[in-house]
Amino acid sequence: MYNISILTIGDEICIGQITNTNASWLAAKCTELGANVVTHSSIRDDKQEMVDELNRLIPKSDLLIITGGLGPTHDDITKQVLAEYFKDELVTDKDWEAHLIKFFNKRGYVLTERNRAQALVPNSSKVLSNSIGTAPGLLFEVDGKKIIALPGVPSEMKAIFIDNISSIIKSDMIVRNDDVLVYKNFQVSGIPESKLADLIGETDKFLDGGSLAFLPSFKGIRLRVGVKAKSFEEGISKIGLIEKVLYERAGGFIYGQNDDSLVSKVGEYLVQSKSTVSVAESCTGGLLGAEFTKISGSSEYFVGGGIVYSNEAKINILGVDSETLMKHGAVSEEVVKELARNVRTKFRTDFGIGITGIAGPTGGTEEKPVGTVWIGLSDEKVTIAQRFVFGNDRDMNRERAVGTALNMLLKRLKNFKDS
Amino acid sequence: MYNISILTIGDEICIGQITNTNASWLAAKCTELGANVVTHSSIRDDKQEMVDELNRLIPKSDLLIITGGLGPTHDDITKQVLAEYFKDELVTDKDWEAHLIKFFNKRGYVLTERNRAQALVPNSSKVLSNSIGTAPGLLFEVDGKKIIALPGVPSEMKAIFIDNISSIIKSDMIVRNDDVLVYKNFQVSGIPESKLADLIGETDKFLDGGSLAFLPSFKGIRLRVGVKAKSFEEGISKIGLIEKVLYERAGGFIYGQNDDSLVSKVGEYLVQSKSTVSVAESCTGGLLGAEFTKISGSSEYFVGGGIVYSNEAKINILGVDSETLMKHGAVSEEVVKELARNVRTKFRTDFGIGITGIAGPTGGTEEKPVGTVWIGLSDEKVTIAQRFVFGNDRDMNRERAVGTALNMLLKRLKNFKDS
Repeated sequence: MYNISILTIGDEICIGQITNTNASWLAAKCTELGANVVTHSSIRDDKQEMVDELNRLIPKSDLLIITGGLGPTHDDITKQVLAEYFKDELVTDKDWEAHLIKFFNKRGYVLTERNRAQALVPNSSKVLSNSIGTAPGLLFEVDGKKIIALPGVPSEMKAIFIDNISSIIKSDMIVRNDDVLVYKNFQVSGIPESKLADLIGETDKFLDGGSLAFLPSFKGIRLRVGVKAKSFEEGISKIGLIEKVLYERAGGFIYGQNDDSLVSKVGEYLVQSKSTVSVAESCTGGLLGAEFTKISGSSEYFVGGGIVYSNEAKINILGVDSETLMKHGAVSEEVVKELARNVRTKFRTDFGIGITGIAGPTGGTEEKPVGTVWIGLSDEKVTIAQRFVFGNDRDMNRERAVGTALNMLLKRLKNFKDS
Repeated sequence: MYNISILTIGDEICIGQITNTNASWLAAKCTELGANVVTHSSIRDDKQEMVDELNRLIPKSDLLIITGGLGPTHDDITKQVLAEYFKDELVTDKDWEAHLIKFFNKRGYVLTERNRAQALVPNSSKVLSNSIGTAPGLLFEVDGKKIIALPGVPSEMKAIFIDNISSIIKSDMIVRNDDVLVYKNFQVSGIPESKLADLIGETDKFLDGGSLAFLPSFKGIRLRVGVKAKSFEEGISKIGLIEKVLYERAGGFIYGQNDDSLVSKVGEYLVQSKSTVSVAESCTGGLLGAEFTKISGSSEYFVGGGIVYSNEAKINILGVDSETLMKHGAVSEEVVKELARNVRTKFRTDFGIGITGIAGPTGGTEEKPVGTVWIGLSDEKVTIAQRFVFGNDRDMNRERAVGTALNMLLKRLKNFKDS
């Protein structure tokens, strides 16, 4: 197997000021390629810690990926430490210097000394181009091991990985004829984790040495199947057998695979049925619209919506009846149905979704506790509404409302399709 | 200093399927207490890897916190490995067993053998109560070092930390009379990182042994000051001296401190000035509204908005002139000004914000490349608009548009306040 370790450098990670999304992104990408991610480690901007980690991680890795500490300020020590570690000197990479001059000229700036220093690289390293920033990636090769340093800015780290590192890993694995780890994910919604486990039942037999993991989130459950194989082809065929059993036992709840998301799948169904949708959002404040429009090409089916946070907005913008509001309150079946129906007619779409609730942490009553959310779905024929009581956490309640609304629409679209 | 290491166990972290939010949460909590978080490490559900990490991390830590692998299923190996490592046997903790029986009875279930096993603990460990789940935390003490194992479910991990571990760390630090690390953050917007660095200039003198870190994001830059001190009081007074210099040199760009965010600060100013705001969103599709309504209490100033993704919605819902649209295109100064002005009058707010752009990755032209975003801001007296060209990444362009719009409003509100 091709073993990869990930080392993140930076006080901000160590003290918990930011979450290490770089490590999870890199790990997911390496895993996709069939490599074995052995460990992630995060340390402070500290030379001795970094040297200790290089000594520990290089022997256990075919590839060590380091992120962070490559920027232009004084606490960015990665380059210096690597140069010392490999007994290198910093030399100017003329190509990267020329690139930097162009980069700044294009933006109307002159190259400052601080920025020119980004072209200084350890002499034994190879520059990996950064298509969107000024700090290049650095590749070292020592005794058949590769060590790569990347800037910590996520967008730059990702660009360098996609443009350079992905193909390095692929090529290494082919040359070495490594065993691969192959994973496939199945996206499930509309069923709790324990019920899904019961439905799938005994796994040892059909997994046949493979693994099955349950990964629940607000938007459903991800089932991850993993197998070890001599090749991708073999891995895929092993997974095929497992997949068959999963669909036999729980296929009704599996809505997609791998990177499918609720919103991408809903989008596919809308395109297929040439339908459009609009949203009326109160407690989610635009989050459902933002979720729809994450998808490039969503303009084909997402027309828009009303963010009607105040009661006045509900009345003036989406024509909710003020008496209904008075009588039943903003968080009610009656109001959410008007929202869904009215946004649909106003935006001239096939479907209208309404969301109104008490996201919290305050504003709850005995009758309508924090976490109470009404979701309405309207089409030409019928307008339905469902009440949910989520939890006490504001962010979570808003996320769950969005996931649940999408799930309601998905079900409706699937029924249309199947009927 | 009181040194803490964090070890996370689980394949799902290692392969990047989930982001390690446990480590960042724990690190932030430990940092708040003045402790020194040395490192985080994540490994697979693998016995040998775990033993290696125990051997490496215990010597460098006063406290090692382990999360994950304490559940009731077969891949949960943490307890067994720790028992072997400390040459313990698993024995039933009668108190925890009694607690489990109650826990399940209360929910109308009988205690199964799988769940009863949660009361089996290594004989040298102390049980740390879990107020919301079935797996207790385990505390080991060896040669003056503490090792704590916690379940990986975030809510349970957090509950055990808050109920038990926080006071253990505090008490240890008092008994040992440890130095503390104290941090303070300053939130900056409206200036690029390198210009801010130039503005602040030479830091060695005024930092006087303290640290200053730059943490850029789409919404601005976070400046983090850190000092080492004998007590919290001393640390705070040391930071006060540094703070004074930072405000002298860059105060015009510092909009807040610690957990202040652009949107929370904008909210404060809106409350102070008793003003309201509405939004007209095209390419951001609701993201700005979602950002405003993240804040509990935002209903005091955020009224709502229109998500006008299609041209028809721009015309029908927010009354954008169809000729203006035809002549200048949806991504234009003219249209964004109409959006900002019309949403303000339609929603009867003091401020209206309009956003229209090409988020990408497709849809760009030579004249209007991907990343082009117009942002408009309208009040009773004036409607302004600014053009920005961000990058190629759809998510990033949308986030930057939201950050930039908030920054425009913040500036306007500050000017009102200062004039």
